[in-house]
Amino acid sequence: MEHVVVGIDVGGTTTTMGAVTRTGAIHWRGTFGTQSEGGFTAYMKKLCQTIEELKAKVDAEIVGIGVGAPAGNYRYGTIQAANLNWGGKVNFVEALTQYYNLPIVLDNDANATAIGEMHFGAAKSFRHFILITLGTGLGSGIIHNGELVYGWDGLAGELGHICVDRQGRDCACGRKGCLETYVSANGLKRTVFELLARRTIQSSLREFSYRDLSAHHISNAALSGDKIALEAFQITGHLLGLKLADAVAHTSPEAIVLFGGLVNAGALLFEPASRSLKEHMLFLYNPGMPLLPSALPQADAAILGAAALAWQKMKQTKTILEVTG
Amino acid sequence: MEHVVVGIDVGGTTTTMGAVTRTGAIHWRGTFGTQSEGGFTAYMKKLCQTIEELKAKVDAEIVGIGVGAPAGNYRYGTIQAANLNWGGKVNFVEALTQYYNLPIVLDNDANATAIGEMHFGAAKSFRHFILITLGTGLGSGIIHNGELVYGWDGLAGELGHICVDRQGRDCACGRKGCLETYVSANGLKRTVFELLARRTIQSSLREFSYRDLSAHHISNAALSGDKIALEAFQITGHLLGLKLADAVAHTSPEAIVLFGGLVNAGALLFEPASRSLKEHMLFLYNPGMPLLPSALPQADAAILGAAALAWQKMKQTKTILEVTG
Repeated sequence: MEHVVVGIDVGGTTTTMGAVTRTGAIHWRGTFGTQSEGGFTAYMKKLCQTIEELKAKVDAEIVGIGVGAPAGNYRYGTIQAANLNWGGKVNFVEALTQYYNLPIVLDNDANATAIGEMHFGAAKSFRHFILITLGTGLGSGIIHNGELVYGWDGLAGELGHICVDRQGRDCACGRKGCLETYVSANGLKRTVFELLARRTIQSSLREFSYRDLSAHHISNAALSGDKIALEAFQITGHLLGLKLADAVAHTSPEAIVLFGGLVNAGALLFEPASRSLKEHMLFLYNPGMPLLPSALPQADAAILGAAALAWQKMKQTKTILEVTG
Repeated sequence: MEHVVVGIDVGGTTTTMGAVTRTGAIHWRGTFGTQSEGGFTAYMKKLCQTIEELKAKVDAEIVGIGVGAPAGNYRYGTIQAANLNWGGKVNFVEALTQYYNLPIVLDNDANATAIGEMHFGAAKSFRHFILITLGTGLGSGIIHNGELVYGWDGLAGELGHICVDRQGRDCACGRKGCLETYVSANGLKRTVFELLARRTIQSSLREFSYRDLSAHHISNAALSGDKIALEAFQITGHLLGLKLADAVAHTSPEAIVLFGGLVNAGALLFEPASRSLKEHMLFLYNPGMPLLPSALPQADAAILGAAALAWQKMKQTKTILEVTG
């Protein structure tokens, strides 16, 4: 019987899951609301019901479970769910182990995406790369020698919080001037608002309130030649390239992959980012360092990332078995 | 018979070596000039003569050779010796393999020191740490899970060249504003000269030419209460802590170890550096992150680092043998 893993993405609003083969084919998709009455106990019950539904529908053997979650910790299997009614930190893996005697692995969504890109996406041929997610914030996962760099506490790869300007923009982390306050969908919007204040030139973006303006509006304006929007992308790409050059000096990857909504802006982002990366990188490193867009299908990226965590664990176990056996 | 490895430090002027036990005892020390007539071929001959001398004197079995060199590359076993008469890049490991049928490993001196601290020094109890060498420049070695982070090309861990200010000080790498132009013995001197120009207060350092001023003079002045010298250390420590906070966000170590001449300044450097590290680190990380001075004896650090490279390789091989056998 074919082997599959269950990939589970625990979003703030919706939990989605699928049965995923070794080559990334998704056989079944399930979804339910993450928040419901009864807190974490009720959630776990609903989750297991959905897995049972999946088992009934899919003619394959489930060999593992992978879970991606925004504040998931790989080392401890926990989710620190500030925005959920789960009463603080929960040990998700421990809870799920009570239902399923399978390898279960949990990680934050940026790390899951990094492993996803390595198994099914843009990084299939790489063993050393950095994955950057550009959504509301900036997340990252660093792959070295085909494995995630976790650090001693599972918290490595927080590139959204490296310093651009400690006297700069307020960050959700409580400090000022972190990279994600400049380079992210939200950072792009903040840059537009600074430019609207600084420049006097006309811009269609002057019609939007801060609340209403989205990265999508800014991309469209840039594509129509709006100078404020174009400059905002130049600044965003410049800072991204500058900080990626520093990241290269840490772990010397063979490529960098960008993922997330902002990546849809295409050349608007990649052109200044690539130029800045090349300009700022130490001469020792490959001046042609590939800066690539994600190759995961956007709608299924979260399921594929979560599933890849499980396949990655399977692979490690298998390697050990092969070496010992 | 006791096992030892030969630790060889290839300096620009002098090559030093010793026979080093698994616990870091040095049984014999040899030294000869690195530069001599006859180029690399003559050098190799002299090196092997000295190893033979060592073999004759030491009642122990040599089980490996480790080599540390400023521009050594672990992946390729090469030394890019711009300041030596060896005619550019030489494959040191390949050349030495023709004489000795032993595990031979070569690396740059910052990486060798990192492995040295893990085997014999301040990082014996750590499996995740960052080693910073503060000499004329700034070097670094990143240890993750008990292994050096090499990156795909062996060139990871060049923290001396992360960006402080791209409009800043000229760097030997051809760019501007790299960390080592601020945080190093030379960087400290440059900061003193900026302060001598900016401030009007008295300072004993106004007596020195740029050529004559050393970090040692600046330390002594600071210890005597010289305000320029004290401010220069505050600035240096501040920048070091700021950039170490960013480094923590990359690989999340459990400790950071500082090595090199500048470390002798003690609290003058460690106090502002620790304060700045704590102030700038993301809240997720250990606010008590240890920032430690090297615990390698300074005179033998280079030999111990080189020897540790060999012992580390031995350990990896042994692990594989244990797993398979």
